[in-house]
Parts: sequence; structure tokens; C-alpha cells
Amino acid sequence: MHTGDQLCLTAADLTVRTLGPATVPSPLDGSLLDPRDSVHYVAETDRVLLDDTLDMAVRRGLPTRELPAFEPGGPRSRLFFDPPRTRVGVVTCGGLCPGLNNVIRGLVLEACGHYGVASVTGFRNGYRGLNRAGAADAVELTPAAVRGLNDQGGTVLGTSRGGQDPAEMVDTLVARGIDVLFVIGGDGTLRGGQDIADEATRRGLPIAVVGIPKTIDNDIPWIDASFGFQTAFGRAAESIRAAHTEARSTPNGVGLIKLMGRHSGFIAAYASLASEDVDVVLVPEVPLDLDGLLAHLDRVLDRQGHAVVVVAEGAGQELFAGQPQDRDASGNLRLGDVGALLRDRITAAARDGGRDISLRYVDPGYAIRSVPANPFDSVYCQRLAQAAVHAAMAGRTATVVGRWHGRFVHVPIALATASRNQVDPQGDLWLSVLEATGQPFTWSAY
Amino acid sequence: MHTGDQLCLTAADLTVRTLGPATVPSPLDGSLLDPRDSVHYVAETDRVLLDDTLDMAVRRGLPTRELPAFEPGGPRSRLFFDPPRTRVGVVTCGGLCPGLNNVIRGLVLEACGHYGVASVTGFRNGYRGLNRAGAADAVELTPAAVRGLNDQGGTVLGTSRGGQDPAEMVDTLVARGIDVLFVIGGDGTLRGGQDIADEATRRGLPIAVVGIPKTIDNDIPWIDASFGFQTAFGRAAESIRAAHTEARSTPNGVGLIKLMGRHSGFIAAYASLASEDVDVVLVPEVPLDLDGLLAHLDRVLDRQGHAVVVVAEGAGQELFAGQPQDRDASGNLRLGDVGALLRDRITAAARDGGRDISLRYVDPGYAIRSVPANPFDSVYCQRLAQAAVHAAMAGRTATVVGRWHGRFVHVPIALATASRNQVDPQGDLWLSVLEATGQPFTWSAY
Amino acid sequence: MHTGDQLCLTAADLTVRTLGPATVPSPLDGSLLDPRDSVHYVAETDRVLLDDTLDMAVRRGLPTRELPAFEPGGPRSRLFFDPPRTRVGVVTCGGLCPGLNNVIRGLVLEACGHYGVASVTGFRNGYRGLNRAGAADAVELTPAAVRGLNDQGGTVLGTSRGGQDPAEMVDTLVARGIDVLFVIGGDGTLRGGQDIADEATRRGLPIAVVGIPKTIDNDIPWIDASFGFQTAFGRAAESIRAAHTEARSTPNGVGLIKLMGRHSGFIAAYASLASEDVDVVLVPEVPLDLDGLLAHLDRVLDRQGHAVVVVAEGAGQELFAGQPQDRDASGNLRLGDVGALLRDRITAAARDGGRDISLRYVDPGYAIRSVPANPFDSVYCQRLAQAAVHAAMAGRTATVVGRWHGRFVHVPIALATASRNQVDPQGDLWLSVLEATGQPFTWSAY
Amino acid sequence: MHTGDQLCLTAADLTVRTLGPATVPSPLDGSLLDPRDSVHYVAETDRVLLDDTLDMAVRRGLPTRELPAFEPGGPRSRLFFDPPRTRVGVVTCGGLCPGLNNVIRGLVLEACGHYGVASVTGFRNGYRGLNRAGAADAVELTPAAVRGLNDQGGTVLGTSRGGQDPAEMVDTLVARGIDVLFVIGGDGTLRGGQDIADEATRRGLPIAVVGIPKTIDNDIPWIDASFGFQTAFGRAAESIRAAHTEARSTPNGVGLIKLMGRHSGFIAAYASLASEDVDVVLVPEVPLDLDGLLAHLDRVLDRQGHAVVVVAEGAGQELFAGQPQDRDASGNLRLGDVGALLRDRITAAARDGGRDISLRYVDPGYAIRSVPANPFDSVYCQRLAQAAVHAAMAGRTATVVGRWHGRFVHVPIALATASRNQVDPQGDLWLSVLEATGQPFTWSAY
Repeated sequence: MHTGDQLCLTAADLTVRTLGPATVPSPLDGSLLDPRDSVHYVAETDRVLLDDTLDMAVRRGLPTRELPAFEPGGPRSRLFFDPPRTRVGVVTCGGLCPGLNNVIRGLVLEACGHYGVASVTGFRNGYRGLNRAGAADAVELTPAAVRGLNDQGGTVLGTSRGGQDPAEMVDTLVARGIDVLFVIGGDGTLRGGQDIADEATRRGLPIAVVGIPKTIDNDIPWIDASFGFQTAFGRAAESIRAAHTEARSTPNGVGLIKLMGRHSGFIAAYASLASEDVDVVLVPEVPLDLDGLLAHLDRVLDRQGHAVVVVAEGAGQELFAGQPQDRDASGNLRLGDVGALLRDRITAAARDGGRDISLRYVDPGYAIRSVPANPFDSVYCQRLAQAAVHAAMAGRTATVVGRWHGRFVHVPIALATASRNQVDPQGDLWLSVLEATGQPFTWSAY
Repeated sequence: MHTGDQLCLTAADLTVRTLGPATVPSPLDGSLLDPRDSVHYVAETDRVLLDDTLDMAVRRGLPTRELPAFEPGGPRSRLFFDPPRTRVGVVTCGGLCPGLNNVIRGLVLEACGHYGVASVTGFRNGYRGLNRAGAADAVELTPAAVRGLNDQGGTVLGTSRGGQDPAEMVDTLVARGIDVLFVIGGDGTLRGGQDIADEATRRGLPIAVVGIPKTIDNDIPWIDASFGFQTAFGRAAESIRAAHTEARSTPNGVGLIKLMGRHSGFIAAYASLASEDVDVVLVPEVPLDLDGLLAHLDRVLDRQGHAVVVVAEGAGQELFAGQPQDRDASGNLRLGDVGALLRDRITAAARDGGRDISLRYVDPGYAIRSVPANPFDSVYCQRLAQAAVHAAMAGRTATVVGRWHGRFVHVPIALATASRNQVDPQGDLWLSVLEATGQPFTWSAY
Repeated sequence: MHTGDQLCLTAADLTVRTLGPATVPSPLDGSLLDPRDSVHYVAETDRVLLDDTLDMAVRRGLPTRELPAFEPGGPRSRLFFDPPRTRVGVVTCGGLCPGLNNVIRGLVLEACGHYGVASVTGFRNGYRGLNRAGAADAVELTPAAVRGLNDQGGTVLGTSRGGQDPAEMVDTLVARGIDVLFVIGGDGTLRGGQDIADEATRRGLPIAVVGIPKTIDNDIPWIDASFGFQTAFGRAAESIRAAHTEARSTPNGVGLIKLMGRHSGFIAAYASLASEDVDVVLVPEVPLDLDGLLAHLDRVLDRQGHAVVVVAEGAGQELFAGQPQDRDASGNLRLGDVGALLRDRITAAARDGGRDISLRYVDPGYAIRSVPANPFDSVYCQRLAQAAVHAAMAGRTATVVGRWHGRFVHVPIALATASRNQVDPQGDLWLSVLEATGQPFTWSAY
Repeated sequence: MHTGDQLCLTAADLTVRTLGPATVPSPLDGSLLDPRDSVHYVAETDRVLLDDTLDMAVRRGLPTRELPAFEPGGPRSRLFFDPPRTRVGVVTCGGLCPGLNNVIRGLVLEACGHYGVASVTGFRNGYRGLNRAGAADAVELTPAAVRGLNDQGGTVLGTSRGGQDPAEMVDTLVARGIDVLFVIGGDGTLRGGQDIADEATRRGLPIAVVGIPKTIDNDIPWIDASFGFQTAFGRAAESIRAAHTEARSTPNGVGLIKLMGRHSGFIAAYASLASEDVDVVLVPEVPLDLDGLLAHLDRVLDRQGHAVVVVAEGAGQELFAGQPQDRDASGNLRLGDVGALLRDRITAAARDGGRDISLRYVDPGYAIRSVPANPFDSVYCQRLAQAAVHAAMAGRTATVVGRWHGRFVHVPIALATASRNQVDPQGDLWLSVLEATGQPFTWSAY
């Protein structure tokens, strides 16, 4: 999110959809909480400010009380759903990301253990598990069944890419009496969840659809950091280290590491900062000029005898202009393979320049996304899951659980999928990268 | 920081001290940045809102533009110090914390590499290194000297507890021509830094003292999470896991783990959430009733045959009421040894109840604080260090670098040492702990 | 094992007890193995030479064919037990050691998966699980039940110290129809297994008792390296690293690490070699002279400003001469607490010498023994378990599975418990330690 | 090494070349060792038996004292070289392997610290560093310079593939007064070392060339396990785990992991045993029949819904018969890319069979060979290096340091490069793999 984009948002954009009035007393009262004390509950009027700087707030020209703000997440004293009569469903979609199992476990423990819902059903293999054929594979998720999931990468529910017919999926929910569906996935998945919520509304069904945004690239807006992101860039830093070890062990060694990041270079940026030895970071947010890059690499090799280049998969797409593009099963445009292109161009340029380089090209993608969550993400996934259950039990729908300035918030799916979180080439994160790598501000001016 | 505490703060409390007008053009312009583009620079009028909820902002009753706000961190286009004529000093004080070496490295790379200061001097062994005798051990810190520090725990500068005479320390700074001193340490250290800044002001010396707050307990306010905290609780979670493995391998096995946390139970809370198997978490913020705890443990052992208890060192201090207390070299009150007390009481109660328990008491303190920073903290320390150098070069003094709602900010040392960041027993973090452990809301009502 | 000890061993000492003739064709033939090829099977006449040097072999004065040798482990073409009618039991005893769960898993997979035995019963909590009361807790172990155990420390069966009445334990085996009992434990446990085998023989029962020797100290003879040993010293090296980080971060910092090793200093020796920064290693095999040690430490502190001392728990027991000693539940003599003694003496000596040291005493015992097996031990445990099942199915009893010069061998329990494996103070391992630490050959001459 | 291969070896084959009589008293006496005690020294008549089984020894038909045996490694009381007048050189060649830096460090500490040689020179970038141009880059290696190398992957000296003119390399040694050259590398490198030794002998120069065999594949004979092997297969097991996580998270997921192993499948075998979830292991030692493999995979997918295949790079080379082959810079034949072939064939077969598989192909090669040594390898490298220095100082040349049945031994380079260590398809390691994976004994019979 860049600064300017926020200014056009109004209170209406930040309002989440609710299924109806919350009239059921929360069961948390009788269990966890001291009856004399209810400050744990979030007041329905509480709001988290959208703008983080005074400057932006002032530019709105609104009185303090009308500043746009998010609804905060957390437990409510009154619920929409009556827990013992509520059936819950869970589905994981799209590519793997560290923490998926932790979120599943957190949802089950919160829904069963604390709210005491009637059941939690796990739909298998993404939205396929919600179509007529796939629903047969659904499994019952109990606290015992999710024990130990904290330490496992991947998703026990399986996953797949691509959407399914919303009507058919709502049929499945109705057939199984599901009141609340949690969808864990990226922007395509969340839009699919919106479609399910819309179809349910159209039929007058009080079914809540709450999303937990999954994006290893950290590119979904209104989320300080997406779950699994820290684990992912930590693991990516290990791959960089290995490539650096190779590069500096050979004369004119070049390590080229392709990392995730279709639209946003956060993993590339953070993993490079966490390493000590990256010379160049290429991200989708900063235009790439090949000649400038090659000239810079030449100087780096002259100076230190080896070089390490980190490239986000979505960087340098302008180099593929004019080439035909197709789409994957999730409907995403297939990117040009910038890693292979750089490997070939760097090698060719070195040969032309009479330098005998030894280039190692590493694409650790699968290794990064399938590791178990680190302790931070393990805690974060659990708390995200708790916030999602609180939201759903209070009747929120077509809503995702976000985190804004350290607070859990409710964000309409429409808003969460309307833009992308990107590295600001003028911001302090990218400045840190420039400082750490010593690479130039722009390639074209080089 | 509890909600209510913020309301009494005014704009004056948030104003940082500056040595004088910033008139020197930043050298970053000529190197990193494209001359046509200067948005990287922080405008001197920029501010980060103090209040994170609309509710709090409204309760102030102020017009939008007068809401209290922090000065943001980051590079300025005009500096107070002229880099090539500026001499920088660094000192690390108090106990170890993951990331100390990363901060040192970050300071050196930023000051030397980007600003091009004249020199960076490392004072050895805490404030002792700034008194007359200790100053002889000071070392020159160059980019080459800090290479590889990212992966090393501890501090290359050494550390010690306790303060020194401010006058003598300023004498040392004057003798060595130091213009900027970075102090890395906890609240005692930061107060010592304030004393140095005050002494310099008294003498009319334009010496900047900028603090990087170090608190493995995460108890310094106005910092979302202190550096090293994630590394620390991740390591603590490993100790909990080992204790749990022992506990469940023996009939009536009890694992008792003492973790850091004099005043704040963040490490205990987060490490327990990151583990799957903690039954009880005891923190300083929640009163401890021994009978309630023992009764609960009895039930846990009946139910699952083993139990794991995590206790922050500052928990249950009310059990030591009336006992004499002394202070350590840092001037902190020595805490009653709640770990040993619990070990003895739990063992005695089991014996009295006819249960043959096997209790393992683990105090992994040193192991936790001496590990190298994890990738997240590695990046965070680097960026904190960059922010500190930016602040100092712009002439800020008696100031610490904080992080508020995800933004780096400048906080007066007086404000940063005036209160503590604590776990809110009514907040969502603690609620998550209660939910994850199944322990009761209060022990006394048990 | 010191060189000289082997010379008195004869072929008779190396002969293992067999329940009777092996007449049942192995089922491995029909499943894994190509029927035309049976070289996988170990010939009953195969032997592994006891003596590893020509010198020792020559000193025996025997013709080549009469040199003493072990029976090799591995699958036999003919079995004593008929797998589908064979019931198997497993029990783990004594302290934790990395790899226990891996051995359990390996036994179950081999017995069920490859031999197709009727059942595997897990007796809970050590030999207690074989007495009348404890047998009720026994659990069925299936391949599905042991899935994922590879990654878990501890033992799913639980453990306890101390023996039980052999007659009562044989009663339990008879009542449950157990034909083969695997005992995983140290020398006390193995002697208990011998008692069970003897009692069964006395009653004329064809029950095989096969031991898998467990000793985190690596002190059982005829085993190149005991399972879990590599994992353990690797983890111990981490503790040393943390203590070293602390020591060098403080003026006159001293790190004192107590490691396992009642009679043998292998963990202390290997963990110190794996670290870079140990100044002194103290093991049970080398006499300790306190004055010599203190004088050496003084010089180390003078020279480098800090010192790291690693002490095996059984070192320096001569310093406790004349003090009363009692025994633990396993019947082992309680050792004098050499770690606490060194802590106190080093501190006192420094104070007397006017040196203000900062000593950290670390005892990471539980953390070391409860970690999951590393990849090497994971493989090793699996292969040990396979060898144990092969031995038992072929009718071996009162036998342990050892590893001699890289080959799995069968060792009579009596021989395996008759002596200890110790660090040879004249051998090349200890020479490496002396070279790496720079400590003197003897303390007394110091 | 297969059993039969040993029988033709005679005492002559095992005899190492020595430069001349050892007359210089070892300096170890005066430093480390108690003068009254010299059993640390290896007697020149000591020998380690070649044959590890009685059966093999008997089949020789020799009297005990004439059984073939290796010269043991270790310190001698008399040296050939006079340490203070001895100059040492070190070179690392070929691909990276965990532990290279540990060996370098061990050589320097032993040579400088304990023998007190005049100097240690590090030649850069493999044998290139010994030709006329490369020698200019040579660096001085001191104990201070190698500090911290234990924790770093790669090689500080750099490496390259391919040989150089022996005459030119000996010229370099002469020009720099090098008396002892340590070469760390694989069989090509060792043969290069032999050439240097031969050239020196031809010129009558008393230059010792001692090799430390480096083979991540563990394929050099007479070495129980090559340095770095445990680290490598442990890291490979992580890659398998990631691929398995991916595979089981998708319907019909297939994980295909290519590991090192040109001629020997040890890494594939051990890494698969260390993992729990490998369904097929393909190694060079076992012929591959594609139809059999594809049929088996089909059944695995039917049964469990996913499959994991591990393939050593040298497996299935028979599938490339008739294709042209070229050689790499080290002179090795370029292998057919069996990983890519399997990827394509498995995918095609699934498509033909109407199964919609999701195959992930992972080639973690660089990541595995560039990691730092684990604690075991760290100790092992240090001890190997010590043994190499002992051998050289005693005047051995054209010799490598091996490890036979747990003892360090001296092996003539000619013998060490005459055959390969391979997985015995009839041996117990491979049987364990068959048992663990459930794959058939032969593919063709499938």
C-alpha cells in the first residue's frame, strides 16, 4: 500500500458485512473469564484508525471522530451463532505457505475448545473439496486430530488451485449444515469466498464466510505481515547463504537466487537484508534495465571476485514484453522466467567480456514454502485463527481477518482484494536494501 | 503500556531534544539517491499518531491536527553533523540479548558506509569502557571489523552492569573528540545516556546521545517488539519442548521452566503460545495464589499424567513479601527465586498428596540470551541501527529509536524510561494464553 | 575398552545363547528378496574379528581360524520363531536418550512390516510396566501407531528407573503370550533383561530377550558409538557455544558447563572438539588436581580474558573421598556434584587472587537427552532395531546388538555389562582434546 | 568395496611410500606429553588388519602374522622433517563438500600450534593456485587466520576443477620452499597429488604429498565414511522432507528429488533412511527398469495418494546408452540427466494413464554441499587433519589418510584411487533401504 492510495478510502469501504444482530451470550463468559470482568470483549463501537500518520489524518480534513477506521477483531460478548448448534467448515486453497496447519489447528481449538461448536469439517484439496464429487472426502477435525500439527509444514487438508461453481459449493454447505466456512488462501481464494458469501446471501442463508489471507509474498494489503512470511524469508536467507558460499569459493563465482514474489518483492528484500552478502536485489516494484545490471555486476566482480544476485520471480517482466502469456490453474498470468533469462544473459555477457564466470542458479521455491512455521508464525497463526473464529461467531461474513498497526482488524474481502501490498521504492525498507547491497537507486541511470 | 496511561501524554512529552539547526546537506543525496527524487527523506513536520484507536483519539477531545504524535525516524535531507568531521562512539551495557552484534554492525555500516563519518570507536565492557581506566581498551570499528558479526551471539564490545560518573564519561568523549554516542542497553543504561547528554548540555557541548533500547523482556514502552525478542522466545520454546518431552516420558512427570521476565511476562507468554504443551503460564502481571495453582496442577496430572509449567522470573513476587531484598550491580532489586520456590512447593504438595511426581526444573536463561539473532531480528537490528544513525546525524539527543505501530519513531529517553510495557491481563494476548493452556482466569477464585 | 582388556577374551566369552535350532524359513524370502538370490542372509558360520590390529592378533599366538570373533548381526534364512505365531514386547528403561522413539519405531516396522509377527506390545514406564500392576497399561504398537516417531524426542512408552522381580515379569510375558522381549536400556536394564532370560530358561520357556544398549555416555563396550551419542554431543556443543558467548562478552568471564558422563568422558571430549573455544575438559578417566586446574585457569584468563571449562559429571570424584554416598533408583551411586564444587572453588580462588570473575554455570542435561535424533542417529537406530529383530527371530537370547568396527554383531549381555567403554588417556581421541584445548597432560605435574 | 575385491590385495599394496628415515625427535614430547609416557606414539610396526571378518582372513590361507594390514595413523616419536625448518602448503580442489574449512583449520592448528612449523601457505583456487600465474595469490595461513572457520561452509582457499602440469606445480613448491603439501580433494585431485609426489621423487626432492580424501558421495574406498558425508545426507534429508510435504498436500502429488552420487548411492540411501516417507530410492549400483518403476509408482499412488522418489544422479545411466557423452573440467564423463528424464517419463506415463499428477522436481545439490559441517564432521575433520600432519611430518608421501574400522590408517594414493566404495546391493544397508521403502528387490522382475 502506498501512502496516497489510502486517502480515497471512506468509512463505507471499511465496513464489514454482518449476517444479523448478535443476541447469543458468548460461552467464553462461563469458562475462561471471570464473570465480574468483561473487558476482554471488544465493544461493537471500537475502531482502529486507518491512518498512521498525523499528516494523512490532517489531509482528510475530517473532525477526529469521523476519521476512517477498521473494526477491531476479538471476542464479542454477544454472538450471532449459537455455538452448540453451529457447524463449521475449513478449506485451504492455492500454493503452500508455512503456517497453514497452524491456522487449521488454531481454528479447531478455538471453535471446539472454547466456543464448543457442534463440529468442524475439513474439506479436502481446496475448493475442489466443496464441489459435489470432492465433498465425499471431507474429514472431521477434532482437537485430537489436530494435535502436533504445529510442527508440520504443508496442509493436512490438501490444497489445489482454481475455483469451483459457487452454487455447487453452497449446495455442499447446505447439505452438510455448515453455518461458518473459513477459507484460507490468497486473493483468488478470497474472491471465491466472497462469491460463496454472495450466493448464500442471495438464497437468504445465514452462512458466514471468513477468510484468513494467505500470501507468502506478503502482498495482501491491510496486513502488517502475512502469516508464514517470516518463516519464508528466514528459509530464503539460508538459500542465499548457500549460494554465497558457492560463489565465493570459486574465482568469478556468481550466485543467482530466484525467490517468490509475483507482484511484491518483500521476500527478496527481507531475505537479502537478513543475509550479509547480497550484491543485487531485483524486485517487481523497481524497473530492471539489463545493461545497467550487467555493468554493475562487472564492477562487483572486479572489486570482490564474486557476486550474489537475488531476484523475485515477478521482477523484470518488462523484459518479456510482446511475448504471449498464458494463465495457470489459479487464473494467474504465467510470468516470464526471469531467473533463466538472467542466468543466460549474465553468462553470455561474461563470455563476451572475456570473463570466465562460474554461475550457480538456485530456485529454492518448494523448499521455502513447505517448511513448518517458526515460533513467531506459530503464535501469529494461532492468534489469527482465534480472531477469525471470533469474527465468524459474531456473524461477520465476506470478511477477512487483517492486522493493522499491530491490531487484529476486520477487513471486507472486497477491500482486501482490491489492491496489493508492495515494497515502496521510496520507503525506508527499500532504502535499507540499497544501503545494505550498495546497488544503485535506478538501473537505467547507471 | 495500558490504554489508560496514554491519555495523559501531551505533545510536549513526545518532543525530542535537538542539538541545533540542521544545515548540512545529507551525503546520501550524492551516493544512493537519485538527485531528482528526495521522498526518502523524512519531512521535519511528519508525525506518527500516538493513539491507535479512534476511541482514544476521540476521548482526547482535540482537533485532528493537535492529536499527540511521535516524530518519525528516517533520513533527513539536512544534518546537524558534518559527516567527514564527525566521530562516533558505541557502547553496549547490561545483560546479553540476541542482536547486540547486529546492532553494532548496523551502526558501523550506516555511519561509515553511507554517511562517511570520520571514525567509529567501540568502548569496551559497558559504561566501564567510558571511565578513565576503561577508555584505554577502546577499539576502532570499521566495516571490515564488523564483517560476519550478524551470525554471532553476545557482543564483541563486551558488556558490564552498572553506571559510571557522567562527568568522567563526558571527559572521555571530549578527550577522544566523540560527537555522537550510541548507547545500547536497558532502562538503566538509557538513563545513564540521558545523564551523559545532560552533562554535555550543561557544558555546552554539541554531543548527541542516542539510545537503542535493549530489553529481552520486551518491557520498554513505545516499541512494538524489542530487538532480540523473537529470537529469545523462539529459543525459549525449544527449552519448553525439551521439558515437555521429559515430563511426558515419566509417570507424573512435571516440567518447570523458568524464563526471563522481571516485570513483564512477554517471553513466557509467547514461548508458551509457540509450544503446544504448556499447561500453566505464570507472569508478573497476574497475581499468583499457590493453593489455586497446586489444586490446578493436581487436576492436570489426574487428567493427562504430566504437566508443564512456565514461570517468568518476576512472577509470584508477592510470595516473598517481608523478606529482605538487595540489589544487583545494575541497581535492580534482586527477585525472590520463584522457580526454586515452585519446585519445592510443588514437590512437597505432591508428596503430601501421595503422588510420586518426577519434577524437572529448567532455567535456560544463559542459553536463550546468548544465541545469534534469527533472520527477523537480524533485519530489524539493522534497520533500528540505521534509524539511530539518521537520528543522531540530524542532531537528536537524549532520544531513543522506538517503533510504534510499525513505524520507526524518536522517543525522548525520559518517556521511554518512565513506564513499562507489560502483558495486559485483560488483553487479547493473555486471552490467547488462557485459551491455549486452559488455565483459569485467576488463581484465587480457583 | 583399553587394549589390554581384550587379550583375555576367548571364543567362549563371545558366544551368544540361542533358544534352539532355527528351522522356520524366513518370510523375507517371499517378499523383499529375489528367490534366486540369498546372499543377504548371514551365514551361521560368519564371524567378525575381535582384534582390530595385527599386533593384538599376533599376541594371541593362535592360528588364523581360531582368532576370537563375534557373531555378525543380520537376517538369517532360517528362524527359530514362526512369525505369524510370534508375539513381541518392547520396554524402554532408565534416563532419556535421543533415538529411543526411533528404535521403538524401527522394531515395530521390522517385526510387523517385514516379518509379519502377530503383535507388538509396548510395556509402559520401564520395567514397572512388566510387573503385575503396570502390565495393565500396556499398549498395542502398530506401524500406524509409530508413524512420525522419528522426529520426537523422549519415549512414547514412558520410562522409569530401577528393576522389578524377574519372576513377576516372566509371569506377565507368559500371561500375554510374549515370545520375544526387546529391552532398551543401560547396563542395569540389560542385567535385568539377563535375569528375565535366565528365569525363562529356568522355567523351560522359549522366550527370547534381546537388548538394544542405550547409553548417552557411550560407555557400553563393543559398540563403536551408542545410539543417540552423536545427537547428544552435537546438542552439548550448542550449550558450550552459548557459555562461550557469555564468557567472552564479560571481562574475566568464565563459562563452566557440566555434561553427562558418569564413568566415561566421551560427550565432554567430543562436544569440546566440536566447539572451537574450550580451554579445559575434565573427564572421569583423568585424575583431577584442583590446584593445577586453578593455576592453569589463572593463566588462561591472563592470556585471553575469559575461559571455558567443560566437566563430565563423573570427573573429579576423588575430591569427594570420605563423603557418604547413596544410590539412586537405578542403584547407581550418587556422584559428588563436581560442577557445583568447581563453581565454588573457582570463584573462591579468583576472589582470593583479587580477580573479579563473572562465572556462569550451565547444566544442560535435560535439554541434551530429550532432543530428537539427528539424521545419522535416526538411520542408526533403525538399523540397530532391524538387527535386533533379526537376532531375536533367529532365537538369540540374553544377547545385545552391538557394532564392532562398523559391523553389527551379537554380544552376550554378560560380556556387554562386564566392562565399560572409556576414553583412553593415552589414545588419539584424548590427544586430540589436549591439542585442541592446550590443557596440560596431567594436572598434578602442573 | 565389495568383499571379493579385498582378497587380491597383498601386503605390498598396502605399503605407503616414505621419504626417508625418521630421525628428528617429535616436539610433542616437550609440550603436550608427559616425558615419562610415550604410548601416544604409534609404533612403526603397528598395523590395522585389512580383513574385518574371520571368514575372509581364513580364506587368505596365511599365518596370523602375515595377514595384510594397514599402517595406522597417529603421531610418531621420530619425524622425518624438522618442524621449525618445515614449510607447509595446502590446496583444496574440486566441488564443495561440508568440512573443507574444518580440515584447513585443523591442518593449520596442528602444524603451527603443535609441531611449530615455519609456515603454512594456502594456495588459492585448486591446482590453478600452484601454476605459475596462480601462485601469486597464495596466502599465509596462521592460527588467527583460521579462527571461526569451523562454522563456515565452502573453502576459504577457493577451489577449481581440473589438473595442472606437475612440473610447473613442483617448480612452485620449490620456489616457495614448501616441504609438505596437503591436497584435499577427490580421486582426480589425489591422482594429481601422486603426480606431484612422483615428479618430486624424480627430481630427488624430499617433498611430502599427503592427501585428505574429499568425496561427498562417500565413494573413496578404505574410508568408513568420508568427511562431510553425514552433514550432507542430513541436509539432503531436509530436502526430502520438503518434497514429501509438497507431495502429500496435493492429490496425486509426486516428489522427485535428485541427489549427489555419480557412482555410489550412499547419500540417496542414507538420506532416505533418515526420512520416513520415501517410496523409491534409485542408485547407480542397482539397474533401473523404467517400466517396472512406473508400474510401482502407479500402485503407490493408488494406495496412498502421493509418492516420493529419490534418485542419485548416477542412477539409470543405462537409459542414456548410445547418446554422446562429453567430460567436465575435472575430466569426469558428463552424466545423462536422470532427474529430468524421470520427471518427463513419470509425467507422460501418468497422463497416458489418465492420472492428473502434480510432480515437483527438486535438485538441491548446491544447498547440500555448501553447508557448514555438523558437530560430528567438525570433530572428524579435525582428527583427519591431525592424522594427515602426523603422517607428513613422519615422511609419508603419495599417501592419503583413511579410516578403516574406526582407526585412522595410511593408504597409498594408488590404492585409494584404484577402486570405488559402493553400496552393496546384497548388503545390509541396501536391505534396510528395501525394508524402509517397500520397493522391490529388482525393477525388472516387477
